[in-house]
Amino acid sequence: MKGFAMLRIGEVGWIEKEKPVAGPYDAIVRPIALAPCTSDIHTVFEGAIGERHNRILGHEAVGEVVEVGSEVKDFKPGDRVVVPAITPDWRTLEVQMGYHQHSGGMLSGYKFTNSKDGVFAEYFHVNDADMNLAKLPDDIPPEKAVMICDMMTTGFHGAELANVQFGSSVAVIGIGPVGLMAIAGASLRGAGRIIAVGSRPVCVEVAKHYGATDIVNYKNGDIVDQVMHLTGNKGVDCVIVAGGGVETMDQAIRMVRPGGTVANINYFGYGDLLPIPRAEWGCGMAHKDIRGGLCPGGRLRMEMLIELVRYNRVDPGKLVTHIMYGLDKVEKAFMLMKDKPRDLIKPVVIVN
Amino acid sequence: MKGFAMLRIGEVGWIEKEKPVAGPYDAIVRPIALAPCTSDIHTVFEGAIGERHNRILGHEAVGEVVEVGSEVKDFKPGDRVVVPAITPDWRTLEVQMGYHQHSGGMLSGYKFTNSKDGVFAEYFHVNDADMNLAKLPDDIPPEKAVMICDMMTTGFHGAELANVQFGSSVAVIGIGPVGLMAIAGASLRGAGRIIAVGSRPVCVEVAKHYGATDIVNYKNGDIVDQVMHLTGNKGVDCVIVAGGGVETMDQAIRMVRPGGTVANINYFGYGDLLPIPRAEWGCGMAHKDIRGGLCPGGRLRMEMLIELVRYNRVDPGKLVTHIMYGLDKVEKAFMLMKDKPRDLIKPVVIVN
Amino acid sequence: MKGFAMLRIGEVGWIEKEKPVAGPYDAIVRPIALAPCTSDIHTVFEGAIGERHNRILGHEAVGEVVEVGSEVKDFKPGDRVVVPAITPDWRTLEVQMGYHQHSGGMLSGYKFTNSKDGVFAEYFHVNDADMNLAKLPDDIPPEKAVMICDMMTTGFHGAELANVQFGSSVAVIGIGPVGLMAIAGASLRGAGRIIAVGSRPVCVEVAKHYGATDIVNYKNGDIVDQVMHLTGNKGVDCVIVAGGGVETMDQAIRMVRPGGTVANINYFGYGDLLPIPRAEWGCGMAHKDIRGGLCPGGRLRMEMLIELVRYNRVDPGKLVTHIMYGLDKVEKAFMLMKDKPRDLIKPVVIVN
Amino acid sequence: MKGFAMLRIGEVGWIEKEKPVAGPYDAIVRPIALAPCTSDIHTVFEGAIGERHNRILGHEAVGEVVEVGSEVKDFKPGDRVVVPAITPDWRTLEVQMGYHQHSGGMLSGYKFTNSKDGVFAEYFHVNDADMNLAKLPDDIPPEKAVMICDMMTTGFHGAELANVQFGSSVAVIGIGPVGLMAIAGASLRGAGRIIAVGSRPVCVEVAKHYGATDIVNYKNGDIVDQVMHLTGNKGVDCVIVAGGGVETMDQAIRMVRPGGTVANINYFGYGDLLPIPRAEWGCGMAHKDIRGGLCPGGRLRMEMLIELVRYNRVDPGKLVTHIMYGLDKVEKAFMLMKDKPRDLIKPVVIVN
Repeated sequence: MKGFAMLRIGEVGWIEKEKPVAGPYDAIVRPIALAPCTSDIHTVFEGAIGERHNRILGHEAVGEVVEVGSEVKDFKPGDRVVVPAITPDWRTLEVQMGYHQHSGGMLSGYKFTNSKDGVFAEYFHVNDADMNLAKLPDDIPPEKAVMICDMMTTGFHGAELANVQFGSSVAVIGIGPVGLMAIAGASLRGAGRIIAVGSRPVCVEVAKHYGATDIVNYKNGDIVDQVMHLTGNKGVDCVIVAGGGVETMDQAIRMVRPGGTVANINYFGYGDLLPIPRAEWGCGMAHKDIRGGLCPGGRLRMEMLIELVRYNRVDPGKLVTHIMYGLDKVEKAFMLMKDKPRDLIKPVVIVN
Repeated sequence: MKGFAMLRIGEVGWIEKEKPVAGPYDAIVRPIALAPCTSDIHTVFEGAIGERHNRILGHEAVGEVVEVGSEVKDFKPGDRVVVPAITPDWRTLEVQMGYHQHSGGMLSGYKFTNSKDGVFAEYFHVNDADMNLAKLPDDIPPEKAVMICDMMTTGFHGAELANVQFGSSVAVIGIGPVGLMAIAGASLRGAGRIIAVGSRPVCVEVAKHYGATDIVNYKNGDIVDQVMHLTGNKGVDCVIVAGGGVETMDQAIRMVRPGGTVANINYFGYGDLLPIPRAEWGCGMAHKDIRGGLCPGGRLRMEMLIELVRYNRVDPGKLVTHIMYGLDKVEKAFMLMKDKPRDLIKPVVIVN
Repeated sequence: MKGFAMLRIGEVGWIEKEKPVAGPYDAIVRPIALAPCTSDIHTVFEGAIGERHNRILGHEAVGEVVEVGSEVKDFKPGDRVVVPAITPDWRTLEVQMGYHQHSGGMLSGYKFTNSKDGVFAEYFHVNDADMNLAKLPDDIPPEKAVMICDMMTTGFHGAELANVQFGSSVAVIGIGPVGLMAIAGASLRGAGRIIAVGSRPVCVEVAKHYGATDIVNYKNGDIVDQVMHLTGNKGVDCVIVAGGGVETMDQAIRMVRPGGTVANINYFGYGDLLPIPRAEWGCGMAHKDIRGGLCPGGRLRMEMLIELVRYNRVDPGKLVTHIMYGLDKVEKAFMLMKDKPRDLIKPVVIVN
Repeated sequence: MKGFAMLRIGEVGWIEKEKPVAGPYDAIVRPIALAPCTSDIHTVFEGAIGERHNRILGHEAVGEVVEVGSEVKDFKPGDRVVVPAITPDWRTLEVQMGYHQHSGGMLSGYKFTNSKDGVFAEYFHVNDADMNLAKLPDDIPPEKAVMICDMMTTGFHGAELANVQFGSSVAVIGIGPVGLMAIAGASLRGAGRIIAVGSRPVCVEVAKHYGATDIVNYKNGDIVDQVMHLTGNKGVDCVIVAGGGVETMDQAIRMVRPGGTVANINYFGYGDLLPIPRAEWGCGMAHKDIRGGLCPGGRLRMEMLIELVRYNRVDPGKLVTHIMYGLDKVEKAFMLMKDKPRDLIKPVVIVN
């Protein structure tokens, strides 16, 4: 079969590989809708997860099951499924600790591209199908559903980590697709004021749709100053970091009130240190919690988020600005994510 | 001044009293919008809080400050304010424990009618104005704002106690005004499916507006059976009890899944015992948490909820089916709550 | 092989069965130390989990692995292990929800005797050995370690559910072996005053050893009155229910303060309803949380509790009042639990 | 009256001031036992809280009430009291948010020396006596009780922030008096293994008394390497930072496992930035929570901790290595804290 792969750091291309084989608990899935992720770009061009050779890319997919192992009970060929970006081994001590994302080691719940081939191929492999797949309801179109796999679970995890309460004020730094889903998640968790920090017009418009009440643009001055000004110098209750470089953590801590929370869902691909400003962190004593975590995955998480889409609590489809047809368009979609044209939020490739 | 009072259990009427006087930390407020509550009915006709003589009724009010004590810093005559139903003394050990509702003793944060005159009068007294009043933004009309004082904080507390998570399935038992706000709160906290248990058509319509996805009517059979049927016999993640008699707790526990939560915000006015069904509670071991609590009050809670109204996260005004004008209409509004005509959810009286 | 079994409700005896066989993820274990549990008595003589025919009893065991399946990685024949009473299937949605105790259905994490043969036999079967066994350190004697399997995890879960904080006052109702471990757990979680409610002298002595500061004996009057008197009529912060009949829940709720927690770890074997007193539960609004849950099991839980024993944070061996030798003594130990002689807390049978 | 004061940054001395006057809710207290704190040293010699002129030092005191305001209900002259280092104004929005430590602004719950005179004087002033004083039981000697005011509440807050669970492995970095109380707190919260990072022999001995199971000395190599080696390269569940410079945060994050927590209770007196190591923080995604907060104060906190001392759950008196008599010895005690002789943990001055 063919797949779109990272050949080595800095280089991508189409390769031929053997079709994967399902172990007794696994499934083989044929993609129906695929989406590239900014982290694919980091992986290839920044070497964010280290060197990989001829490793198929991609971790956002909706597909059709074409084969299941002998021990799979709840799925069969022909089932249409949402595949989470995070597909852990559920039999580990980390799961017993409550952190499936780190099952088998830090971040090891993230397997696609990282420790095995990803989803940008004619077929891909899903470990422990009963625990890691979720059925796609007929009334959710694939291009919308594929936004659940990573964008929605990640953005919504930002709202979870940030401990948003009824009426909380929230700043979301970065309004790419993950930041936009963080805005939607904060709104759906009961936030009052939501200050979106970003500048691209296409994103600003969608940010407002998802519930942003104020827009802060770095072009208009220091973003911390702007947020402090908007809040009467009190700071916000919660900050969700969904973009930026290491210095963003410094900014986030400055703009949160004592007793508030900074939640990171951004992948910091470079830099040695993330800085915490000593004085604004109350010399260590301000009760400004700093959290950051890989998105939850697995079957139940997908099912819970699917419920939100099914019942129209949120429409992640607003993220999708470009739809292309045919597996070969994955390359073009991938390059769009790299080049970020003015009108792009997220491209989706429909296969078949 | 005149006020509408409980003369004794079972009897109400207008009385004359001295205008209240503000202590150094207090305020005197003139009502702008008032609403009677079902609990006023319980208080008078069921003697739910015991006997009271010539005690002015009412605890839902938006008003104008007419006088403040010498130590009040943040409010002055002329300010328009939202007055919470719960106005605690903030200097107690219960507050230090985190339970302002029980400041000074179980439920003692509830003072209006309970331990002093209520708000159905030409003027009423608010203790610790800086801690218990919140400014009303100009762009929120009083008839909407008065739904925040008790209905919204109570209903939303149901969603808080029920531990609603992204995608949770929630059953709300009782769809009077508090139950309707519980639906809105559950939705705004990220619930997926919301099953509203009720029958009155006017309420069913508003329940759907606030996010109910399914309606269960007791006239169609046992409500537990219906909820279990809808959920494929699994039960829901959360139940919010917002109406009914003591037997409702039994039903609630039967319809929640192991590991789920039953949250009560209903005032049980009679009966000796609330029953927990032993077998369905897993013989004591099902991890079905049972919680129940008086709504949060005080200034910050009001300010947080006002943010939700200001930013259009929720419109509590949908509860208001009847608006009347003039303080003397309080009696009519009160009797409406007692008689519950077919088209009533909540009446509001605008004063001036 | 031979095993000590429930022949039917009300009848026990020794039976012959085939030695169990390990599936690919399983282990076969030979017991080294065994203990009968009060719940075995409920199971046989009250039919608490329903009818069972020729089902081997027992769920508290330390043993030696004699056989492992092909996929078991961390254990091998000859390993000495602590076997938790709760040995869930770790690949279920309930585990993804955070409730391994209810994996596969309410209480289904409890498999021994319930859904398969128990441990009172020459050999017994453990599902998913890598996830459900924990190695026994050489310096912990088996008769002490076997108290971890159920007594310690259950009692300590009481302290967890009760939300004990530094300095909390705690009442523990029932001071059999589970209640005694609840006292130890509360103390080890930072409780201040611990009021033990019980009467048997042998238990009272050990209760004091584990940290009880006050003893309340029902023979001296109503236990609620006594606890209220001791606390200046305020009630305690936490109640752990570790014994008694359904009426104990009523007593527990009466003696806890508003904002406090009642945590049940008792197995209620009979009665239709557990009563919540309406008025003392604040008419539904007192924020007195009511919780109850089956003890956590699995490998990590055992490992964490083993750490506490290894580092001398607690000595569960104080529970063991009787030690017998030889598998055939299981019957005598079992009958001791039924007859509860004056000097008994918990008997242990050492095999080999 | 005379008091021992910070004259300006870098300089201390005795000064004369007017005896303070109690407002209606306040108390005037005469010290019985006093202790200097490392933070007094930071305040004076590092200018940690900025310049202060002739400001009386000290915030750890047990004393006798000599005067109360007209509104004080629960205390009267002659009462012996424990005075918390943190004495907030309880009527603020920050208290309603749950952060009395930041009542009135970040860290503003800390008033002694910071915003008013401290306790090293013949008399000192306590705001809101009913909310900020706790009675000293007769059976707790003052030199032990004075360790509760700051050392015990701070160290124990470390264990609270670190989310210690039954069996958790905990590293405590820094074993001065606060770190030692963090060890005691972790142990009393149910920790299993406790790795104390420090080198002074007098502290090492007390660390073991309070529950440390392993000692890591920086003189034996990199502390992160040592902790990782001890834990089989897994890291610990919790780290409590109770000493060190800004680089300590980096070390703490390196030695905690994914899903674990770093809790800071150290006052970082200098440096612009606290560094988070990007890679070891999982590129932002490791779920390694970073928390830090000023100790809880106020009456209830003191009462809860007094319970722990009264019931012999912990003996904070083990911290006290030097006892001196007479108010004038405060200067000597203060200089001891500055010079840290080999045998010092904490000095106490008994007055009268």
